[in-house]
Amino acid sequence: MPKVQPNPHRRHTVTQPRRAVVREVGLRDGLQSIQAVLPTARKKEWIRGAHAAGQREIEVGSFVPARLLPQLADTAELVAYAKALPGLVVSVLVPNLRGAESAIAADADVMLVPLSASHAHSLANLRKTPDDVVAEVARMRAARDAAGSKTLIEGGIGTAFGCTLQGHVAPAEVLRCMQALLDAGADRVSIADTVGYANPGAVATLFGQARAIAGERLCCGHFHDTRGLALANVYAALQTGVDRFDATLAGIGGCPHAPGASGNAASEDLAFMLQDMGIDTGIDLHKLLALRHQVAAWLEGEVLHGTLWRAGLPKTFDATRIAA
Amino acid sequence: MPKVQPNPHRRHTVTQPRRAVVREVGLRDGLQSIQAVLPTARKKEWIRGAHAAGQREIEVGSFVPARLLPQLADTAELVAYAKALPGLVVSVLVPNLRGAESAIAADADVMLVPLSASHAHSLANLRKTPDDVVAEVARMRAARDAAGSKTLIEGGIGTAFGCTLQGHVAPAEVLRCMQALLDAGADRVSIADTVGYANPGAVATLFGQARAIAGERLCCGHFHDTRGLALANVYAALQTGVDRFDATLAGIGGCPHAPGASGNAASEDLAFMLQDMGIDTGIDLHKLLALRHQVAAWLEGEVLHGTLWRAGLPKTFDATRIAA
Repeated sequence: MPKVQPNPHRRHTVTQPRRAVVREVGLRDGLQSIQAVLPTARKKEWIRGAHAAGQREIEVGSFVPARLLPQLADTAELVAYAKALPGLVVSVLVPNLRGAESAIAADADVMLVPLSASHAHSLANLRKTPDDVVAEVARMRAARDAAGSKTLIEGGIGTAFGCTLQGHVAPAEVLRCMQALLDAGADRVSIADTVGYANPGAVATLFGQARAIAGERLCCGHFHDTRGLALANVYAALQTGVDRFDATLAGIGGCPHAPGASGNAASEDLAFMLQDMGIDTGIDLHKLLALRHQVAAWLEGEVLHGTLWRAGLPKTFDATRIAA
Repeated sequence: MPKVQPNPHRRHTVTQPRRAVVREVGLRDGLQSIQAVLPTARKKEWIRGAHAAGQREIEVGSFVPARLLPQLADTAELVAYAKALPGLVVSVLVPNLRGAESAIAADADVMLVPLSASHAHSLANLRKTPDDVVAEVARMRAARDAAGSKTLIEGGIGTAFGCTLQGHVAPAEVLRCMQALLDAGADRVSIADTVGYANPGAVATLFGQARAIAGERLCCGHFHDTRGLALANVYAALQTGVDRFDATLAGIGGCPHAPGASGNAASEDLAFMLQDMGIDTGIDLHKLLALRHQVAAWLEGEVLHGTLWRAGLPKTFDATRIAA
């Protein structure tokens, strides 16, 4: 790749991490929300391609009953496949103890336990209250420790900025749930704007407060682009010191109640923003865009998102920073 | 409108202005970039609708030769029309002294003089060097003062984050041009990411430096959404104290070299972000979305942008803040 002049706009003083992780959740949060069912062989190709493009954290699926999400029934096989790729941190979603036992048996690196800070959303979606989830996390922790497993438990607090059912969700309730998850034995926590209700001012405040409570154990932000604010929200969270963000290739996924509305932050756009800011993601954007092209072909007919694939990298983009 | 509970996420501590202006530039930056030619009567309807929705600053056109931009040939008539609407600040783009004389004769409130910080872009687009533009601004100022006119002169520094022709543009050159414009008699200055090359880190730095030089006279940020970063860039600029942003309804406009790529920040999405952060824009989003619907129908076949029109306002959006 030709060496280009360093972008003179990159010497800036804003506090920001030197490195950040774009955690690919397209195989879980993306595929569970769309019509297409991707065959296991394609999913493996995707995982291999993401790894080859430099992604080092991938959520490969969800240990939920196959009758609920048949498109994710191959999760155990995908964990085994992904674990064989060097340096790849493999995460899965687990809704309950049974799922956690599967994650431990599969030797996943991380299991993400969703908790919905909205009481109404929690009951509708998980059929549990937030405190029931906290109690389940304590049981997961006991099971994990009893098994001598190293699978990390991440409590993912969703609907943290409001929800489509109950509307407002109090930040104090989000923080209470966060503390409760940590007390119950979660190794780390993350915050999700499940329905795309966050704005960067609210993100700056809540992530700032959460960081004061959880420190480095606040490990990830998860933003949906429903109202075009996913990347603005990432930037706001980044300034509070968070350095890991969930995203999906081509922005797939999203809210079934708003057809066509953007889903998750698009991995390629997010990686571009971070790298163009001088934050190393380890990702080769050319390879990631090529993978997007391939996955887009597999998902023909689905609504895809993102802007970089169409606009291309700017002439000022510093290729020497790619896959540094 | 029903009173709703204030959004508890809105009590935050990030420094931000209490009020901000979404300056509508769709009639100029939008319409000059698309195929459709909007009849004068439609443009008047648009201006009236924007005013009724609470927008108080509109760029209605450009005083350039009609043979170059026939779709903007009705600018003088639009200035006269818009000036009759109470409290509306009417701006026009002027590329040279002749245009400035037309703006003064039309009694526009603001004339925006574009300067391209990229030498290559300046020569290709304006057929002048940046310093030629500075010299022209001095002549405009003399003409304005000689006429006893109150039309404000705004120097708009474009390609401030790089350009598609020469690539990098040094921040020092942007700041030099800014100081030169102010010295030559510009009343105020603004910074534009003409081609969508900015990222929020670069914006924070450059706007911070520009603010240190120009103070309150740095009056506006203009961001394109080519790579999905317009709103993240607005947020970064907002934190430096800038409180006026250009935007176009439905995000129309954009770069002719990237067909289909997003154009400007969408006015409705930007107004939503600001208001949801508790920053008063004076805009009634329901009315603005209705206007978008109308303008979209007039521009059938053109690529439109934005997300709010599809996703709708969140349940947590505080209607009592609308048009406060």
